[in-house]
Amino acid sequence: MTINYNIALIGFGNVNRTLAEVIRTTGSTIARDLGFTLTVTAITDLRFGALVDAGGIDLDAVLALAPGETFVGLGGTAECDNETVIRTAPADIIAEATFTNPNNGQPALDHVRWALAAGRSVCTTNKGPAAFAARELRELARQNGVRFEYEGAVMSGTPVLRLAAGPLRGVGMRGFSGILNGTSNYILGRLEAGMGQAEAIREAQERGYAEANPTADIGGSDVRLKVMVLVEALFGVVLAPADIPLTGITGITPELVAAAAAQGTKWKLIGQAVRGEDGRVTASVAPQMLGSDHPLAGITGVTNALMFDTDFLGQVTISGPGAGRRETAYALLSDIIAIHDSRA
Amino acid sequence: MTINYNIALIGFGNVNRTLAEVIRTTGSTIARDLGFTLTVTAITDLRFGALVDAGGIDLDAVLALAPGETFVGLGGTAECDNETVIRTAPADIIAEATFTNPNNGQPALDHVRWALAAGRSVCTTNKGPAAFAARELRELARQNGVRFEYEGAVMSGTPVLRLAAGPLRGVGMRGFSGILNGTSNYILGRLEAGMGQAEAIREAQERGYAEANPTADIGGSDVRLKVMVLVEALFGVVLAPADIPLTGITGITPELVAAAAAQGTKWKLIGQAVRGEDGRVTASVAPQMLGSDHPLAGITGVTNALMFDTDFLGQVTISGPGAGRRETAYALLSDIIAIHDSRA
Repeated sequence: MTINYNIALIGFGNVNRTLAEVIRTTGSTIARDLGFTLTVTAITDLRFGALVDAGGIDLDAVLALAPGETFVGLGGTAECDNETVIRTAPADIIAEATFTNPNNGQPALDHVRWALAAGRSVCTTNKGPAAFAARELRELARQNGVRFEYEGAVMSGTPVLRLAAGPLRGVGMRGFSGILNGTSNYILGRLEAGMGQAEAIREAQERGYAEANPTADIGGSDVRLKVMVLVEALFGVVLAPADIPLTGITGITPELVAAAAAQGTKWKLIGQAVRGEDGRVTASVAPQMLGSDHPLAGITGVTNALMFDTDFLGQVTISGPGAGRRETAYALLSDIIAIHDSRA
Repeated sequence: MTINYNIALIGFGNVNRTLAEVIRTTGSTIARDLGFTLTVTAITDLRFGALVDAGGIDLDAVLALAPGETFVGLGGTAECDNETVIRTAPADIIAEATFTNPNNGQPALDHVRWALAAGRSVCTTNKGPAAFAARELRELARQNGVRFEYEGAVMSGTPVLRLAAGPLRGVGMRGFSGILNGTSNYILGRLEAGMGQAEAIREAQERGYAEANPTADIGGSDVRLKVMVLVEALFGVVLAPADIPLTGITGITPELVAAAAAQGTKWKLIGQAVRGEDGRVTASVAPQMLGSDHPLAGITGVTNALMFDTDFLGQVTISGPGAGRRETAYALLSDIIAIHDSRA
């Protein structure tokens, strides 16, 4: 038996566009390997407007829209009323991939609340809702018999939340250290190659690794949100941004990089947390000099990595992509698989 | 509600002894965190004999036995009839940790068959049953409404089988490369430090990393069995040892190591497999020179690592312990958690 899930895509930027492409091109493979089909029944986006079709939206048509065009030509509207679509569209699952304000998780947080309250499961790659309200949202999901899944909030499609919650359950999690921002890790690598910071940032922007305003990446606030997500998921402890001392990489000069290299070490921007004997969690984000034998020292370029410190296994490290279109779309797909499993 | 599982320990060497210690010392933590209790109701071992107690064996007493003592003084027998105990003891789960013949998986394979046929779930750290008969045993488990779990067959407690089957499902597995034998990786590291192979083997033996006869480790046959387990688990393809060309590290001389270092590379013993477009899987075990940017190049000492090559995520690598008493006991505990989940 093949189950179908109707999906509403909230936000139609790179992430949900790629999910739509994946559904369009590999839907039959998904059905064969995973046992379900996916039908996109609604799309909203600030630029394109809103489009709802209970019979399934023509993905060829929406993916072929030129810049400046709207959904009006496809029978939709130019306005984008996210709340109405999320609450009323014929969708089992809401794929949330809009903008998040890093200070309060909005508007994505409201999108998730509306969806769960309306009895729809949510998959999202947004850090905001999970960082500021994971516990509330899981409880809201439970009350409504649905799921709130957000694997892509940390390390994109590389599974860390579900690795900790599943295969590593019972391992005795004591803490973690991670390289959780590919942009800053790339820039640090370019400093090692002798580049100045301004030049390295420019190169990262040219390659699509850094945004026009790279503050969240190099200032460390992106990592801090991910640490909040991890601390809640791994330890059940809710931290606010102010609880996590923050130092970015802006102070790491070529001279500091050279001095580290002379000692056989490398600067890495590390987000970390430790749970004390009393259950309290201490977390921080700051550049650290790592010796060459450290599991995170060899993580180069835009790759991300997370090292779990555990009671039974000592250090276990997973590394993989932390960004990218297909990689992030896979995060949503893996969330959908988890939603599917929860219904089976 | 807390469920209790009765466990029979088949083999009472390091692995099952440590599992017994874990149950004895952290049973209440397991009950609180995982929702089940574990009661050891049977133990068999060639040296100690057999002991069965439906009310729960006194773990303090069995763990205090001196070398040369048997279970007779505790009300057991000096003989060890594994088949009778496995088929008839009051056990929900059989923890299989005996010897395995690397050519056919015996006697562990028969132990697993008997257990599953008698309607008991099996957790094991033995490579043999999974390498030679995983498919048959899973089917036998299914027919009897129980589970066959063997996470510890590859990389000890570091989760790779369950990572691939769970959080990475649907990722499009194309192949893998792994450092799957800590002993040989340790020896290669000592060669890099300038040691000769005989001296490095001796040091590994002194530290407890290598057995008196290190042939299976340095000759690569241990890795080959693990590759067989992985190929079946990841691709559903059954390979025989003869299908996997095998070269160990015995031919890696200090001169070859120095020559690799001069090129900025390192020798690593790599077990790998690739699935072709036609679904056929090609696997091998051989030393390879890896450049410093390869995800496995930085894996030092006795640490193991597995790099998955995937369609959606590219390379995802997990590293962690591949041996050790508590690490391997955790593999069994994680199997028991999986058995518990399957009943919930």
